[in-house]
Amino acid sequence: MAAPIRTLANAIRALAMDAVEAANSGHPGMPMGMADAATVLWTEYLKHDPADPKWPDRDRFVLSAGHGSMLIYALLHLTGYAHPTIDEIRHFRQLGSPCAGHPENFLLDGVEATTGPLGQGLAMAVGMAIAERHLNAAFGDELVDHRTWVIAGDGCLMEGVNHEAAGLAGHLGLGRLNVLWDDNRITIDGATDLSTSEDIEARYRAYGWHVVRCDGLDADDVRRALDEAVADERPSLIACRTVIGFGAPNKQGTAATHGAALGADEVAAARAELGWDYPPFEIPAGLLSTWHALGARGQEAHGAWNARLAASDLAAEFSRRMAGDLPEGFSLDDYIAGLIANPQKLATRKASEAALGAINALLPETIGGSADLTGSNNTKTKGQNPLTKEDYSGRYIYYGIREFGMGAAMNGMALHGGVIPYGGTFLVFADYARPAIRLSALQQARVIYVMTHDSIGLGEDGPTHQPVEHLMSLRAMPNLDVYRPADVVETAECWELALRKTDGPSLLALTRQNLPQVRTEASENLSARGAYRLRAAAAHRRVVLLATGSEVEVALATAEVLEGQGIGADVVSMPCWSLFDAQDPVWRAGLIPGDALIVSIEAGATLGWERYTGRKGLNIGLDRFGASAPAGDLFKRFGFTAGAIVPQIIAALETQGDQ
Amino acid sequence: MAAPIRTLANAIRALAMDAVEAANSGHPGMPMGMADAATVLWTEYLKHDPADPKWPDRDRFVLSAGHGSMLIYALLHLTGYAHPTIDEIRHFRQLGSPCAGHPENFLLDGVEATTGPLGQGLAMAVGMAIAERHLNAAFGDELVDHRTWVIAGDGCLMEGVNHEAAGLAGHLGLGRLNVLWDDNRITIDGATDLSTSEDIEARYRAYGWHVVRCDGLDADDVRRALDEAVADERPSLIACRTVIGFGAPNKQGTAATHGAALGADEVAAARAELGWDYPPFEIPAGLLSTWHALGARGQEAHGAWNARLAASDLAAEFSRRMAGDLPEGFSLDDYIAGLIANPQKLATRKASEAALGAINALLPETIGGSADLTGSNNTKTKGQNPLTKEDYSGRYIYYGIREFGMGAAMNGMALHGGVIPYGGTFLVFADYARPAIRLSALQQARVIYVMTHDSIGLGEDGPTHQPVEHLMSLRAMPNLDVYRPADVVETAECWELALRKTDGPSLLALTRQNLPQVRTEASENLSARGAYRLRAAAAHRRVVLLATGSEVEVALATAEVLEGQGIGADVVSMPCWSLFDAQDPVWRAGLIPGDALIVSIEAGATLGWERYTGRKGLNIGLDRFGASAPAGDLFKRFGFTAGAIVPQIIAALETQGDQ
Repeated sequence: MAAPIRTLANAIRALAMDAVEAANSGHPGMPMGMADAATVLWTEYLKHDPADPKWPDRDRFVLSAGHGSMLIYALLHLTGYAHPTIDEIRHFRQLGSPCAGHPENFLLDGVEATTGPLGQGLAMAVGMAIAERHLNAAFGDELVDHRTWVIAGDGCLMEGVNHEAAGLAGHLGLGRLNVLWDDNRITIDGATDLSTSEDIEARYRAYGWHVVRCDGLDADDVRRALDEAVADERPSLIACRTVIGFGAPNKQGTAATHGAALGADEVAAARAELGWDYPPFEIPAGLLSTWHALGARGQEAHGAWNARLAASDLAAEFSRRMAGDLPEGFSLDDYIAGLIANPQKLATRKASEAALGAINALLPETIGGSADLTGSNNTKTKGQNPLTKEDYSGRYIYYGIREFGMGAAMNGMALHGGVIPYGGTFLVFADYARPAIRLSALQQARVIYVMTHDSIGLGEDGPTHQPVEHLMSLRAMPNLDVYRPADVVETAECWELALRKTDGPSLLALTRQNLPQVRTEASENLSARGAYRLRAAAAHRRVVLLATGSEVEVALATAEVLEGQGIGADVVSMPCWSLFDAQDPVWRAGLIPGDALIVSIEAGATLGWERYTGRKGLNIGLDRFGASAPAGDLFKRFGFTAGAIVPQIIAALETQGDQ
Repeated sequence: MAAPIRTLANAIRALAMDAVEAANSGHPGMPMGMADAATVLWTEYLKHDPADPKWPDRDRFVLSAGHGSMLIYALLHLTGYAHPTIDEIRHFRQLGSPCAGHPENFLLDGVEATTGPLGQGLAMAVGMAIAERHLNAAFGDELVDHRTWVIAGDGCLMEGVNHEAAGLAGHLGLGRLNVLWDDNRITIDGATDLSTSEDIEARYRAYGWHVVRCDGLDADDVRRALDEAVADERPSLIACRTVIGFGAPNKQGTAATHGAALGADEVAAARAELGWDYPPFEIPAGLLSTWHALGARGQEAHGAWNARLAASDLAAEFSRRMAGDLPEGFSLDDYIAGLIANPQKLATRKASEAALGAINALLPETIGGSADLTGSNNTKTKGQNPLTKEDYSGRYIYYGIREFGMGAAMNGMALHGGVIPYGGTFLVFADYARPAIRLSALQQARVIYVMTHDSIGLGEDGPTHQPVEHLMSLRAMPNLDVYRPADVVETAECWELALRKTDGPSLLALTRQNLPQVRTEASENLSARGAYRLRAAAAHRRVVLLATGSEVEVALATAEVLEGQGIGADVVSMPCWSLFDAQDPVWRAGLIPGDALIVSIEAGATLGWERYTGRKGLNIGLDRFGASAPAGDLFKRFGFTAGAIVPQIIAALETQGDQ
């Protein structure tokens, strides 16, 4: 059965209405407004194969306006993906259904990115489009030749990150990126003119984008616009004028359809309006088979691609990269052996640069970058050429002053697959990128954040640039491994662990200032368990000093003074709390025993250290903003010296003795 | 002595070079490039009086490109502010000098905002311009009639927040906002064309701004552009083409001048180039007195304003508001008495709306708003009209989907003075606004963040919308009071505390779901000490349950079950950790004793709770991302029920008994 776009699209509208009605929760307005445009896109333009959702050369589709999740659930179901089933759609927004409130990439194949936090879908799509061009440069049109499609709403285009993302996409000339803007003139609070007056099309042109406008409810006009977008060399913004909640006769065009069930009466009225005579969740068999047939139209291209891959000399390498496997035998052991042989006093940001030198030579899949702090973050290694509009084979991106855009682009690259992105800024500006870091963690994306200048040790730039609460606030985030290495060796160990973590992000907090090498003997990767005893007490152990990064040096000096007074003190370096917390409790208790005074030393917020030091421990930290002065002065001023710490330990030992 | 602009400006250049040279740290390039334009602005346009830096009707000047801090230090010194002295400038970036690496409003009068985190100065200036127009609507041209000036760099215009801020300013038609863009085509990594290709002028026009371009090194041309900007009704972007590090003959125009000392040789060469024959830190007396005279040109206007204020019927109210004092006798006691009299089961977001009803009636200085979640955040009260381009007297701002822009605008409003801003979004999107929240805290700005949907209790929207680590990550931030009230009464108490905190921000975390009223007896403000015993153990106390917000209800239910088994349990509600931590240790130990099992119950990350529960306590929390389902199902699924918690407590008591 052939069917006009409107009829096909009404299946989406019905599923969206019905699922939201059943859940009594959700967003029917966007799917109903964009159903026609999305149907044209998915049945005539999008290159995909529902039978193999992971086909590497598929087009990527990102629903940046993630609240309209029923749109993609309906599209996946109708075009023949194994999931969601109609029963899963019936259980929209219920425990156990993959049809979550917002689309989650780890629940459903075909959902390329987790969206909902506005603007980020679009920004991740920029990363996907970068990865596509980069891999195309390495593997050619035969293996990599696809587009990235986005549906974005007004919210996506108001969020600041869209500015960063669109600016980057324009600069890099990502012509295979096409963004359909659901221009329905409605936000949650009401008409868009309550809060904005801008000319979005002019703005996107200013970024170097191609812009075209169409009637999003007229299939022919949508085709015209998509054809124009595909033909244009620039990234395209396709403004689709739509009506939110189209088909709901009394509520369409109003904010009432945005984020709530329409109600039984309005759903009935919409069924009448749309001429949709079927019960809830029922798609007529003929229409469903038409949809399935349209979903299968990518099979031929997929088959041809399979043949090209089979014939390619690059097949093994391509498949390895897309699988996210590191090359066989990859290891930093030799590099670390060299460090042990030639101890150095080095800032960990420079230790990171050195480690990256080894890594980038061994792993062709890394793509580095920095948000305009290349020389400070030490993220660029020798021979790493910039990735530019003229040469996508480059492996270094000048992200500009766009921390959030960088994070989101890296998420998109990691989700696309075939590359391992890492990018730098100052640790204090992790705040700017934080929404992207959270999505890295939630989406289980292998993104590596290189965050330097990780404490008051950055010195003169002062409190606006000195992280205080950042380490702890990042450690609190699920599925993010926060590393704070103490020297060159730990830095290399942490890098290797970060690269080997395939199901989530890592963040390296690195110093501006030089640190002595504290690891001078060959060993296994001691950072792998998150913490280890760096120095064992000589005298009877009464104190265990816990420290990270630059304060390990302070802890060692403190231990030395204590030992000189006959007080035994272990020093435990704790480069990664999440790895430590995952260890066996008995092993952990051996490292941090109950019968000693536990002291934490870290130039940051103390909140959280009590997990290890307990209520009777001692926390040496910084629970205020820093100040502008040379690093050495600040460490003294804020008490990060053995001279300041030892008396506090002795006083605490005496108090404990009293109890 | 009359002096041409270039000669006046060279005093700025010399001070910038010399101070950075002395510190061997800092950013000479921006002050040297913008010295002429800044001199024109400060000596001919800016309305200010160095003798009274807090004159309410002064123009506001914000150095958004805060790394160029020596520009403003030089301007303040040269125009005759009491600080910085030349000695303080000599100690640029040293401990104790108010001339910090980046300008800090709490260290120097005349520094209107703390800047350095890029883009935020411009975004705060938008808030200042809003406050000016709003107060003008209330107090007339006689008392409020000033402009807001900004110097922004390329970095400011790349950061996403500039998009949000400029869009809002264009929408609100803030014609008294004028932004000088230091268009020097250089960022830290090199030429701007490494990372951007956009047409910034076209983009600002798309926001509804007036745009004018000038040669920033030609005083006449700068005057022409500033005149045009002043005359135009729209906010203005003044693109000043400059040369970074102008005057340093071998380094100007390159990134080498951006963030490092020029070096003795280049400083000497620059002195020759600029014809500046004076020793470091020496300004010839004649030139200094010219500068001082130019600084004093605002005195007449100031005197006339003083006379108008003295004659005004509105003087007392105006002065009260600008001082930031609440009206005499302000209190929510009556409102709270009403709550006690009529207990209600209410979501705390709705309790907040009710409290705001009372507050907005009592305090004409509040300006509310939401980032497009008005109906969800419950931030708008009856009779609160929108603040619009047509009517600046309105007290509610539709911020649009601009969380970060909203936070920064609120900072600007609070710093301007005369208003108390509050604004809402979902707690999970605190991440989007986080850089602004940090600046609220650092700048000691009275901004109140209304963050609703504060846990998995928001239900179906799922993990992208469910805060997990947010409470703890915000509690770790210095000078931010995070409140999580448990019912209507605590919500009102927390609101009153937030309003009374004049030297920093507060954040209210509020539920989507209904909560029973747990406070049913008249009392003092029990939230003021951060925590209090809500329920005392009946049986011998073996357990103390600590909880916040929606989990107080769970703690009460848990206590009841425990008591039924003969196990005495206190319940402590902890609406604000920072207030609790500031109490007397003995009092705190009375509330959280050492001889009981301490149990925390909070639907968020457990990290941090060990501060109170210790290493042997029990932490009921959520150390993973949430899921999409109705709230009740999620509370069960993740174990926030008495039925799930009691067995864990009994097991922990048994273990403790073993020790």
